[in-house]
Amino acid sequence: MYFATYLKEGKERLGVLYDEGSKIIDVASILGEDFSVSMLDFIENCDEVMLEKINGYLQENKDAEGMEKIGDVKLCAPIPQPRRSVICLGLNYKDHVEELKASMGDQAQTPKAPVYFGKMATDIIGPMDEINSHPNATSEIDYEVELAIIIGKTGMNIPIEEAENYIFGYTILNDLSARDLQKKHAQWIKGKSLDTFTAMGPYIIHKSTLPLPLNLKIACKVNDEIRQNSNTSNLIFNIPYIISDLSKGMTLKAGDIIATGTPGGVGMGFNPPKYLKTGDVITCTIEKIGELVNKLK
Amino acid sequence: MYFATYLKEGKERLGVLYDEGSKIIDVASILGEDFSVSMLDFIENCDEVMLEKINGYLQENKDAEGMEKIGDVKLCAPIPQPRRSVICLGLNYKDHVEELKASMGDQAQTPKAPVYFGKMATDIIGPMDEINSHPNATSEIDYEVELAIIIGKTGMNIPIEEAENYIFGYTILNDLSARDLQKKHAQWIKGKSLDTFTAMGPYIIHKSTLPLPLNLKIACKVNDEIRQNSNTSNLIFNIPYIISDLSKGMTLKAGDIIATGTPGGVGMGFNPPKYLKTGDVITCTIEKIGELVNKLK
Repeated sequence: MYFATYLKEGKERLGVLYDEGSKIIDVASILGEDFSVSMLDFIENCDEVMLEKINGYLQENKDAEGMEKIGDVKLCAPIPQPRRSVICLGLNYKDHVEELKASMGDQAQTPKAPVYFGKMATDIIGPMDEINSHPNATSEIDYEVELAIIIGKTGMNIPIEEAENYIFGYTILNDLSARDLQKKHAQWIKGKSLDTFTAMGPYIIHKSTLPLPLNLKIACKVNDEIRQNSNTSNLIFNIPYIISDLSKGMTLKAGDIIATGTPGGVGMGFNPPKYLKTGDVITCTIEKIGELVNKLK
Repeated sequence: MYFATYLKEGKERLGVLYDEGSKIIDVASILGEDFSVSMLDFIENCDEVMLEKINGYLQENKDAEGMEKIGDVKLCAPIPQPRRSVICLGLNYKDHVEELKASMGDQAQTPKAPVYFGKMATDIIGPMDEINSHPNATSEIDYEVELAIIIGKTGMNIPIEEAENYIFGYTILNDLSARDLQKKHAQWIKGKSLDTFTAMGPYIIHKSTLPLPLNLKIACKVNDEIRQNSNTSNLIFNIPYIISDLSKGMTLKAGDIIATGTPGGVGMGFNPPKYLKTGDVITCTIEKIGELVNKLK
């Protein structure tokens, strides 16, 4: 099951993909019109009965009311306005650590523990939305394709072996970064939190469609040039470990977004660096999830 | 004017102090019962007319309906559930930078730019609330008294000379910190975000009662021992600069909380360090704002 947030008559609706992804259907058409909720409400409240009802409906694959062609609708970020900061991991692919040694020196070592940081992404941009270049604030904008975990159940001190129970699903996140601000302010939050610097989507794939462990090609292209090209199996700290470790003493909440880190090939890793320029089109892809395209304004 | 969030018949209400702080009155009693809003709603929507009406009422100083003795009510954090992470500054008092050189080495230098980091404080504890010691997650809990700015108006790229217009008021924040987790994870968010690790209150003093520049004694006591003792005039980066700098490319929102950094005297600055122990009572005071007391469970 692939869930999306999309615009229908100017309003954000929760949809689910249908007919091999060619169509989208309003979840309220399946569960009843009373069920006109946001993705966040759905993640917090959905249960096995609802999920089975949706899944059963998709299997029938009949023409239905409230269905639209996927190409005809405007997709938003699956969670356009998260309730909390996105939690990100830095330095979580070996090839990314290696490429940063030149520019970051001692800071770029394979970490003994996950490097967590926050991204104040109050408004997340979706597929085809434009990224603001903020020329007054930064001149070193970089891309980072990442697999993002969407937490499905609130919990603290979650054991590794139970971690998957706390997941709702997965999506693609482009963790846009102002490298000059990351360096200037030592801690990373400001360089990670400029307006429009979080892009996400197009879909959240439900965990029932994609059981752990994940083994997915992950890539990022700038215009026609492939810059990042790896596999999610190369994560230094894997998904169950991250959830268990993060939740020690800190409640993870349904709807939380955890970006698991980016592979090698970011702009700052090149010599000279290849930062983004106005007009660049960034395409982030993760196998089985889809493709997230955004342009730098 | 001093605003507070307090419990009345089990519900959170917005109150304002009255009769030299000895009493609290429900703001809805002044503005009309329809006006039963949270502190966040009030910050977002209050205007000069409302503020003048409240202020006029306080000047009359008559006995009024909906008034209670301050000692009789349970005060909450002024903003118990902020919509975004608290934005904090590290290393923003010179004496605090000096004391950290022994334990942090190169990282402890007077910063050339503000060191911002985030604190995922979804639920902020209030006066007299207990701090959870999370023995499974940390063994190095530290206190940090801080002056917190409450943003009153949403804006981006705010000029320094207009910064005060974007402030609603000020409060006291105890930025509780797990020092072992800050070191372990390199970036600080995890060590700053354990459940109950943000204490705030008791009041938000409105900026009209406390114009810039601020020159306020700031102190922290653990049990009967004074540990931190400074003045907010010793901030390395001052309040207008912080607001202007933070807002470059990043929208600050009404209700945002910015903790401006802690002075010298934190537990990790002593040799050997003086971390908090179960049963310790931490008292944070800022002149003209009040006293925030919490106990480590």
